[in-house]
Amino acid sequence: MDLALKNALGMKGQTDPNPLVGCVIVNDNRIVGMAAHLKAGERHAEIHALRMAGNNAAGGTIYVTLEPCSHYGKTGPCAAAIVEAGIKKVIIATLDPNPVVSGSGVKILQDAGIEVVIGIGAEKSQQMNQVFNKFIVQKKPYVTLKSGISLDGKIATNSMDSKWITSKEAREDVHQLRNENMAILVGVNTVIKDNPQLTTRMPNGRNPVRVIMDSTLKTPIDSKLVTDQQAETWIFTCAHYDKEKKTKLETLGIKIYQTSGKKQVDPNEVVKILGEKMISSLLIEGGGGIHASFLEKKLLDKVVLYIAPKLIGGKNAPTFLEGTGIEKMKDAVNLTDVSIENIGNDFKVVGYPAYLKE
Amino acid sequence: MDLALKNALGMKGQTDPNPLVGCVIVNDNRIVGMAAHLKAGERHAEIHALRMAGNNAAGGTIYVTLEPCSHYGKTGPCAAAIVEAGIKKVIIATLDPNPVVSGSGVKILQDAGIEVVIGIGAEKSQQMNQVFNKFIVQKKPYVTLKSGISLDGKIATNSMDSKWITSKEAREDVHQLRNENMAILVGVNTVIKDNPQLTTRMPNGRNPVRVIMDSTLKTPIDSKLVTDQQAETWIFTCAHYDKEKKTKLETLGIKIYQTSGKKQVDPNEVVKILGEKMISSLLIEGGGGIHASFLEKKLLDKVVLYIAPKLIGGKNAPTFLEGTGIEKMKDAVNLTDVSIENIGNDFKVVGYPAYLKE
Repeated sequence: MDLALKNALGMKGQTDPNPLVGCVIVNDNRIVGMAAHLKAGERHAEIHALRMAGNNAAGGTIYVTLEPCSHYGKTGPCAAAIVEAGIKKVIIATLDPNPVVSGSGVKILQDAGIEVVIGIGAEKSQQMNQVFNKFIVQKKPYVTLKSGISLDGKIATNSMDSKWITSKEAREDVHQLRNENMAILVGVNTVIKDNPQLTTRMPNGRNPVRVIMDSTLKTPIDSKLVTDQQAETWIFTCAHYDKEKKTKLETLGIKIYQTSGKKQVDPNEVVKILGEKMISSLLIEGGGGIHASFLEKKLLDKVVLYIAPKLIGGKNAPTFLEGTGIEKMKDAVNLTDVSIENIGNDFKVVGYPAYLKE
Repeated sequence: MDLALKNALGMKGQTDPNPLVGCVIVNDNRIVGMAAHLKAGERHAEIHALRMAGNNAAGGTIYVTLEPCSHYGKTGPCAAAIVEAGIKKVIIATLDPNPVVSGSGVKILQDAGIEVVIGIGAEKSQQMNQVFNKFIVQKKPYVTLKSGISLDGKIATNSMDSKWITSKEAREDVHQLRNENMAILVGVNTVIKDNPQLTTRMPNGRNPVRVIMDSTLKTPIDSKLVTDQQAETWIFTCAHYDKEKKTKLETLGIKIYQTSGKKQVDPNEVVKILGEKMISSLLIEGGGGIHASFLEKKLLDKVVLYIAPKLIGGKNAPTFLEGTGIEKMKDAVNLTDVSIENIGNDFKVVGYPAYLKE
């Protein structure tokens, strides 16, 4: 199962919106087949592995990180293929998170007289597919906040100078995060101030869709996100906007989504629309206002902070989390399952808002 | 030497303003004496150990974490006592940091034909006596900033609620810090808002002198620092203050130091005066303004942060480092030799401003 999980994890970033799945077939105490799901629309891991095993599958045991599917979709059903191949035992890490089909793959196997064991490696499989598990159930993207900050929580100096807080190594790690997310979101002020590319600069990197929250269509027509053609750019705007500007942006290939907000774009609406557009994961790289608006509505699933061991100071220097904030300390949002590691000269802190467990 | 260092470190907090010193005497492959310096004004470690060894000292080797003294002070000179006892070899971690006497103890030993080895365990001895090493040379206290903060650098909510950011375990660790420092400093706003005790709540804890920076003598006459008699309270004020209030405070046993500042108390002056009063270590537990004023003048020697894995947010919520701040990111103060450890649910980050190495 460990090998199956590793196979699955090796495909991180390339199976969206499908989950990461790996499997290993053992027969006569040797591995006769192994595979991972490589890409949405292509064969599932079980099918690859069964083909590799060929006649050696019969009488064998298959370890698979996610319940084999029961439906005739693009490639399935895997459960039927396992039965056909003559597999005697199936060991599954986690059931399908989709409540509509969860358990039905197992039923097909058991009805065919196959022994099924569930739960080995469940935690790792769950962790690995946190994005898929949310998306398949809620039809909304898994939302990760990412920020590079100083020890005093700042993202820039009092004059808004922000280059660079974190080390080269931390900034490279961010490109891995971008590679793993289907979309990346910023506020229009970041676009105006930094004119960022928001692309994935790493070997074989996949660029996320670039999403701008821009209530009045202030996005400059000559900004990189509009002109560079490196990836799609989607702008979420409010009820009232400059129609001429909209036409100009659309002519340049930018998609404009009008939301119902009068003065501000509601993050709930953005997340809902992105889900409808099959965006299963969203990385927020905004300023403190954008971050606070997503946190206040409990839309953040994960927080990734790169903390540089430096002090910036300044009452007016911006922190990565602003907005109105809370009144009572007891209302602070705790992070759970917090991990911390060194990246270059910085610390990478990863945690999950406690409200997710409430 | 390792045992000598451990003996020394065991006395942390009780030898001020003297350094931590430990020693071990070995003869015929067994330990015949060991000791630490216990308290300023009492015998040095070497004398204790030589007395323990008695006749077994002759022909032995002494491991001592700091160069034996050469002067006839309250207890010395230890170097002469070592010669007298017939020790054949002296192993020293570090020389005396005081440039006036550094090396003179070694000279006495070498002149008497004793073999002297220097540098074994030097880093640990240096680290252990960072307070003494600064104080003996500069006649100013070693200054440590301590703050309990959220991941976004805040010390309170937008309504100034601050209880509690960090876990019980972190707050207990703070009492160890207070125990190790001879004085603790806050701004008058903290006194007015929190009415703190600033005492050391731990078994056998030693209370630091409580220092308030209070430019206009606003310290409430009924605040705990004025009335509780738990420890001395010293107030640093400016050129112009309420004379009647001064008399009242003095009647209650508070010491008032008038400084030359017209509107604000200059941290440089505070540190200088504290040094003259034989305060060798100072813990700053102020708000963001006090912290920034000490950092801007490069007065901080060490930074200790307890970071709670929680998010507070709020554009107006105070961070632990405010003031004017810097304009250019390149002027941020880097921390060096940064360590990080878990304390309860929080992280304790310790670092040293890079300007100390410039």
